[in-house]
Amino acid sequence: MHQMKKFTSVSDVKNLQEIIKKALQIKENPHSETQKGKGKTIGLVFLNSSLRTRLSSQIAAQNLGLNVLTLNAAQEAWNLEFADGAIMNGDTVEHIKDAIEVLNQYCDIIAVRCFARMKSKEDDVNESILSQFEQHAKVPVVSLESATRHPLQSLADSMTITENWREDRKPKVVLTWAPHIKPISQAVGNSFTEWMQEMEVDFVIANPEGYDLDKKFTKDIKVIHNQDEALKDADFIYVKNWSSFDEYAAMPEVKENWMLTGEKLKTTNNGKVMHCLPVRRNVELSDEVMDGENSIIYQQAKNRIFSAQAVFSEILNEINA
Amino acid sequence: MHQMKKFTSVSDVKNLQEIIKKALQIKENPHSETQKGKGKTIGLVFLNSSLRTRLSSQIAAQNLGLNVLTLNAAQEAWNLEFADGAIMNGDTVEHIKDAIEVLNQYCDIIAVRCFARMKSKEDDVNESILSQFEQHAKVPVVSLESATRHPLQSLADSMTITENWREDRKPKVVLTWAPHIKPISQAVGNSFTEWMQEMEVDFVIANPEGYDLDKKFTKDIKVIHNQDEALKDADFIYVKNWSSFDEYAAMPEVKENWMLTGEKLKTTNNGKVMHCLPVRRNVELSDEVMDGENSIIYQQAKNRIFSAQAVFSEILNEINA
Amino acid sequence: MHQMKKFTSVSDVKNLQEIIKKALQIKENPHSETQKGKGKTIGLVFLNSSLRTRLSSQIAAQNLGLNVLTLNAAQEAWNLEFADGAIMNGDTVEHIKDAIEVLNQYCDIIAVRCFARMKSKEDDVNESILSQFEQHAKVPVVSLESATRHPLQSLADSMTITENWREDRKPKVVLTWAPHIKPISQAVGNSFTEWMQEMEVDFVIANPEGYDLDKKFTKDIKVIHNQDEALKDADFIYVKNWSSFDEYAAMPEVKENWMLTGEKLKTTNNGKVMHCLPVRRNVELSDEVMDGENSIIYQQAKNRIFSAQAVFSEILNEINA
Repeated sequence: MHQMKKFTSVSDVKNLQEIIKKALQIKENPHSETQKGKGKTIGLVFLNSSLRTRLSSQIAAQNLGLNVLTLNAAQEAWNLEFADGAIMNGDTVEHIKDAIEVLNQYCDIIAVRCFARMKSKEDDVNESILSQFEQHAKVPVVSLESATRHPLQSLADSMTITENWREDRKPKVVLTWAPHIKPISQAVGNSFTEWMQEMEVDFVIANPEGYDLDKKFTKDIKVIHNQDEALKDADFIYVKNWSSFDEYAAMPEVKENWMLTGEKLKTTNNGKVMHCLPVRRNVELSDEVMDGENSIIYQQAKNRIFSAQAVFSEILNEINA
Repeated sequence: MHQMKKFTSVSDVKNLQEIIKKALQIKENPHSETQKGKGKTIGLVFLNSSLRTRLSSQIAAQNLGLNVLTLNAAQEAWNLEFADGAIMNGDTVEHIKDAIEVLNQYCDIIAVRCFARMKSKEDDVNESILSQFEQHAKVPVVSLESATRHPLQSLADSMTITENWREDRKPKVVLTWAPHIKPISQAVGNSFTEWMQEMEVDFVIANPEGYDLDKKFTKDIKVIHNQDEALKDADFIYVKNWSSFDEYAAMPEVKENWMLTGEKLKTTNNGKVMHCLPVRRNVELSDEVMDGENSIIYQQAKNRIFSAQAVFSEILNEINA
Repeated sequence: MHQMKKFTSVSDVKNLQEIIKKALQIKENPHSETQKGKGKTIGLVFLNSSLRTRLSSQIAAQNLGLNVLTLNAAQEAWNLEFADGAIMNGDTVEHIKDAIEVLNQYCDIIAVRCFARMKSKEDDVNESILSQFEQHAKVPVVSLESATRHPLQSLADSMTITENWREDRKPKVVLTWAPHIKPISQAVGNSFTEWMQEMEVDFVIANPEGYDLDKKFTKDIKVIHNQDEALKDADFIYVKNWSSFDEYAAMPEVKENWMLTGEKLKTTNNGKVMHCLPVRRNVELSDEVMDGENSIIYQQAKNRIFSAQAVFSEILNEINA
């Protein structure tokens, strides 16, 4: 029986194939462990908006019999201070470390969403918020997306690729950058990149010049600055925007149109289209692609329940051990 | 055993007397079906504020053993796009149809509150939001009030009239317009009108000139522009404001005072006073009426639990069939 | 078996030692009464922000098997009117008394947070909001902090002192004012003062001139305007800011530095430091004190679960009687 101490990146997973298998079994029978979390409490702390993560985490926790506390931290509780040693004579009312210590008293698992704030590269790269949870939490911490990673999404993505691939050869998986109107973090791109390196896939990243992801995540993965070239014969196309990492949070001009269209999809190997949602239709990808039969995007969304449930279940193994 | 595929208007009810009877039985014994919704999930999606609907729907769902997910869509999730084919390069982050498709993956029943936006008559008349739920939802949809109707309210209203009428003759029921300070939708008025036509009552509508409801709802119901005349000998008086339908969302000047007062109540047949709440005291009706013994307004509010529970129960009959 | 009709101040507690004992027993075994609240509903109504109170009340209620409805009144429902007899032709949409009457229909227990609004001394002193709940609620009312008191906090504080005192003599307990940047209500200070008078402790209050609490609460308790003198040999130091009561909500200038520091702590009898949280670090007390081994602040926070659970349990005794 696998156990997990925390879940903030792929490195918290001992055996990726095992947890994907487990998540797929849970999908077959989501109510097989309804007593496992009995009498235990998970706190879902949102510092940012959420639809899928919020609902899928609640369902996953309920399927395991956990009590669920959902907290919209900024709106329902207090404006948080993040700086160590701060003299709190300004707008902030409670220090994040005090909030975490209180959550320690109330919860058996703390799950937190803390997006990149996109103001300081250093803060975001160092996970200035999640790191405080990792440092101060005395119970297992689950990331519901942090500044640099979105591991529950990546696990659901890995499940979805596994479900959709029956051939003997490795599939070609392309992560392709997409246009957007605002600077968006690299978290989903980083995280998917990290997980694909652990999967049996041929993985390629396509993005415009100026948009290369952090080398810490891409390592020796091939990065192509020409979308057409990258898409050729792709079996899976993961569409996602991110802003510049080098010139942090900037949006250098892109001359070509990187929106994924039906036309472009034709050059792939009847490729399945993925996106983590929410998606800006007709900006990141066309209606035609979104609503077309190659999209497995809603299946990804559904798998968010089972990826969360697999993780919570392994953490409960650890707690109950 | 009755089944229901969806609940967005009176036309989704096969037998009105049967469902009123069922709701009254549930009121006697609200915990008789605590296992019926076991392992199933209802999503309560609020695009607008709610007190009674929010709480009564949660209680009803819990009484049936359903898991409840409550989502304040705008504040907790993402700003939604409603236009088909939109190029989403503005403020909207997620298309309503993608949100609905995700809810399809997560919920066994989707309940949604989507008020009239009062900006375009065409949009509101065509139920521009609810219709997207009806079109894209793959699970039963329940209206928690939409642009033109509030059927869970009307079912509770019908229950309340039934509970309060013991005589052999048909009661005289008057829906009377009341003053307000802002343009309010016609949903409650329309819906009550629609339901009263299915009930064994003598139904009359009183409103100032310029405030006639949509003919689609009023059909051949008598509309009187003189409140005193309408109130005479009324057994039930339903007080409700709405803005102009013809000159959409306008508030044509009204010379007479249409606020329901104790004085006016004396001209009725010791009539019971109804309102869906929230009510603007001393604008729509006087404190004296609100707090007087003829008010059955809080009883209406209580019946919201049982009207919701009856509907959810019939929908679960359909799902479990 | 003790019963409780409501819980808004220490005077609702028949036997303080008994309820502290009960709360400590619940802490040993929080899941000993999981069926007690079965089929019953508690409404947690928040007119103000909350972290600890929100989460601890939810956990306490869930431990007792209660259904929990949490309502952020202003954001999720309607803007409330508080004035009796108001002509509601302004910003307010629903009168508090109507909201309460509806909660009466939906809940077996109503718990409410209604801070001092700090605009009118008279309104706050008279508990203009809580008093409406006490007047109109037909089910037991629990204060989650009102204009002048925070009794669930004070019960948790009393538990915490009990847990941390093993000597035969009475401990010296000092409530010491602390600096802040905004006018804060006297509720926590008042309430702690009220409870300490019922405990076997030597109780002293220290605050700057101009900051004396309402005589109604302090009665003949010693109030010292010199912090150093008050702290001497203290066994427990409760740190808390409040604004002026006499010159209501003002913040008269304070020349000395009242922030609790490690240096000041040395003059106590190895005193335990308490605070209700949220705390402004390095304004009310120093990081050194907050993170030091004398702090029992997180233990106080944890005890909030058990103080709430003891109260809800006694109220359920009353309801089930």
